[in-house]
Amino acid sequence: MLLGFRPSLRLLSHRHQRLQSRCVQSENTATSAAVDSVLSALRSICGEDGVSLGAAVREQHGRDESVHRCCPPDVVVFPRCVEEVSALAKVCQHHNLPIIPFGTGTGLEGGVSAVKGGVCFSLRNMDQVLDLHPEDFDVTVEPGVTRKALNSYLRGTGLWFPVDPGADASLCGMAATSASGTNAVRYGTMRENVLNLEAVLADGTVIHTAGKGRRPRKTAAGYNLTNLLVGSEGTLGIITKATLRLYGIPEAMVSAVCSFPSVQAAVDSTVQILQAGVPIARIEFLDDVMIDACNRFSSLSYAVSPTLFLEFHGSERSLEEQVLTAEDITQSNGGSDFQWALDAGTRERLWKARHDAWYAALALRPGCKAYATDVCVPLSRLPQIIVETKQDLIENRLTGPIAGHVGDGNFHCLMVVEPNDPDELQRVQMFTERLARRALAMDGTCTGEHGVGLGKRALLCEELGPEAVQVMQHLKDSLDPKNLMNPGKILQQREL
Amino acid sequence: MLLGFRPSLRLLSHRHQRLQSRCVQSENTATSAAVDSVLSALRSICGEDGVSLGAAVREQHGRDESVHRCCPPDVVVFPRCVEEVSALAKVCQHHNLPIIPFGTGTGLEGGVSAVKGGVCFSLRNMDQVLDLHPEDFDVTVEPGVTRKALNSYLRGTGLWFPVDPGADASLCGMAATSASGTNAVRYGTMRENVLNLEAVLADGTVIHTAGKGRRPRKTAAGYNLTNLLVGSEGTLGIITKATLRLYGIPEAMVSAVCSFPSVQAAVDSTVQILQAGVPIARIEFLDDVMIDACNRFSSLSYAVSPTLFLEFHGSERSLEEQVLTAEDITQSNGGSDFQWALDAGTRERLWKARHDAWYAALALRPGCKAYATDVCVPLSRLPQIIVETKQDLIENRLTGPIAGHVGDGNFHCLMVVEPNDPDELQRVQMFTERLARRALAMDGTCTGEHGVGLGKRALLCEELGPEAVQVMQHLKDSLDPKNLMNPGKILQQREL
Repeated sequence: MLLGFRPSLRLLSHRHQRLQSRCVQSENTATSAAVDSVLSALRSICGEDGVSLGAAVREQHGRDESVHRCCPPDVVVFPRCVEEVSALAKVCQHHNLPIIPFGTGTGLEGGVSAVKGGVCFSLRNMDQVLDLHPEDFDVTVEPGVTRKALNSYLRGTGLWFPVDPGADASLCGMAATSASGTNAVRYGTMRENVLNLEAVLADGTVIHTAGKGRRPRKTAAGYNLTNLLVGSEGTLGIITKATLRLYGIPEAMVSAVCSFPSVQAAVDSTVQILQAGVPIARIEFLDDVMIDACNRFSSLSYAVSPTLFLEFHGSERSLEEQVLTAEDITQSNGGSDFQWALDAGTRERLWKARHDAWYAALALRPGCKAYATDVCVPLSRLPQIIVETKQDLIENRLTGPIAGHVGDGNFHCLMVVEPNDPDELQRVQMFTERLARRALAMDGTCTGEHGVGLGKRALLCEELGPEAVQVMQHLKDSLDPKNLMNPGKILQQREL
Repeated sequence: MLLGFRPSLRLLSHRHQRLQSRCVQSENTATSAAVDSVLSALRSICGEDGVSLGAAVREQHGRDESVHRCCPPDVVVFPRCVEEVSALAKVCQHHNLPIIPFGTGTGLEGGVSAVKGGVCFSLRNMDQVLDLHPEDFDVTVEPGVTRKALNSYLRGTGLWFPVDPGADASLCGMAATSASGTNAVRYGTMRENVLNLEAVLADGTVIHTAGKGRRPRKTAAGYNLTNLLVGSEGTLGIITKATLRLYGIPEAMVSAVCSFPSVQAAVDSTVQILQAGVPIARIEFLDDVMIDACNRFSSLSYAVSPTLFLEFHGSERSLEEQVLTAEDITQSNGGSDFQWALDAGTRERLWKARHDAWYAALALRPGCKAYATDVCVPLSRLPQIIVETKQDLIENRLTGPIAGHVGDGNFHCLMVVEPNDPDELQRVQMFTERLARRALAMDGTCTGEHGVGLGKRALLCEELGPEAVQVMQHLKDSLDPKNLMNPGKILQQREL
């Protein structure tokens, strides 16, 4: 199922039938007048232009960047403010229509698939940066603001927001999926960097998880609703505003690339650098297949062997010390001399190449699709799991370059799959399950940063145990009793 | 009510009547046989010695270190393992008896008050440090392990756990109240430092918030149950195990004390040191009244004026740079030369004095009781709120030395109150409400680290808005439909 594809476009009449059958459930009138009434209610809230039934628009909103099949919603709405989001949610609640929030569609676990149809809330028209407080290192953004747009906005202030998944995702979408990226080893994930959220619940209620407009750096005021919503993947509410923690741009930054004779040597170096207390900002592993793909895709010329991309942040003086310690460690593990990226342009090119790893992997086999695993294990287990996983890939004749945020114990196999080869699909499916179970057996998790979405619901149960998953279901039921908020994600599908 | 006292010891017969009336509710038999049946069920689980009805024991378990009135539970039980905690919870669930978890009783918001009677679960017999993984910087502890006990256990490993509320609290209790302390500005609060929790829910179900035995540094696997329980103050479950993040002991540490001509100068220095990106480990403000009290209580001789206690962690080289930057800033604000605490002994004495501020404040007026406020505001608002608050204290003739984790925007007025002076009690009550509202008006919170407990339930509603509090009530109802888990805390009391 994970890797299944199906024709994605449904006929308009079919869609109307579905909307109609939902309206029948709720209103007990079996006429298309019910459908018209829903559509006219939606249009009365966000205007004619704010409601789309177009096939192309619906299809675009029914898939993310993963191999999960496209499930278009019945309608896409484009609210312009939280009041409209709330009013639209009330219409959906009244008519039992699923609500699927949509940021940039750059998720990797099928989070935006409208598996039960319903109304997709595209938040792209809410794209303002609000309330920048440079002196307090915080900012509030609307859900259409992406991480790159925020950092552009911050140019000249001396501040930046460091969480950086590969894609230029929306910040509220990143909050919804508990995203992280290359900087997490130093700056944390979205869990550590969201101070407050505004969210619209399934019934249209607007809440502020830490109180309206509040932004203390710490709080002990009641249940941590902020971190309940972070990572809830749109299943508890639509995030309509996020207050984020910002950081001062370090006085100096320097990046380096180091090649190793073996995977074990590269990963051992990572573990030892962290154990030595080096406050490293980024430490990314790329295996030989991955660096080869990046060389080709991004016109680089690094040695084709297991590689670390490193970045150090700090004052000029502290950088020197960090670099010396790191070099000592890598050389004692047989690493090459550091190849430096000193100026901003070279550094940017280096990290763009790392962020483009997904596309570099896809370019290895044109016409194929990609699926990224994202297990995460305690640091000390990392060498073993990567070595075993590489062996597994070879034995099963699979293309899966490895790139990872190894400082967090988190890495990706970027599985490149021929979608029309059922045997290969099957082997990939088996491989990803083995990999997840390998991580679970090492006290780790099946998902470090991509979330559960559609593909890891069964694994979630293995990972947490049925009792904890039952608690999650209770929480979901209490906030969304009709199961309208992004149904079928995280928790196994229940019927409406 | 906040500052009310009442005779704390109830008669045994009264207690038996209460237990009996509860049993009547659930079993519809009005005999003392029901009481005996409850007691014998409890004893069958944790032995004769594991169940106490003694007045002194009950009273000891009905109060914390605050001025909140003592409300003894009907019974105190002393389970030895999670299986016993679970079995005891099932008995309580069956008989509709409130469950009140008890760590060390060092809370400051009445969290252990048995306001509805019931069974206090003292967790002191579960005091083992389990599963230390030095190479992964994590450890798992039972609920009886205190922060000092853990750090003693870690001696020689090169690791430590930095979160340090004033008292030697239990780590699971610290998780339950979302505690922090002087190191939070660098190392975060309990929210950032708990990787996994084992907890027993009201019905006896045992859950592991991140899956049994798991300890990845980051995860995106479903709702963040870990941070839902952190700060839930015993109202959602009894924490029976915590997996914590550890840190390497820095190569070098140095502490310093600096006096200032005004509150504004001290607080401005704090804000500027943080804005300059100095990774300061501790930066604590003490006003003139507080430093005077600490001088007396801990036999120190610092100048009686607004003061900062600072601590720097890092390599020898990086310390030099941190200290130079900090000194530049303090001197530009009129601060004194740094008085150094270089060796471990002097440093320990300095920070013990800071941690003893509570007792130093109490010693200002023997026979009085103390109540600590703990508002937290964005950093830039700190000078204004502290200056206004000092003015308010003077105008209202109140003793309230100020000490605070100013690097987080969090500070305490340690209100020393004559419990038999209703006029003073009234003035303190009015003062604390004004202070909380002042923080709320500055985008802050009424509680940065002590929690809501009994005293801040009304303020919580002002802070978060009724919608967010209603969401908390829904979550509570979904996990504890009978409202047995520490009833009356965080959320307003509902009848059983």
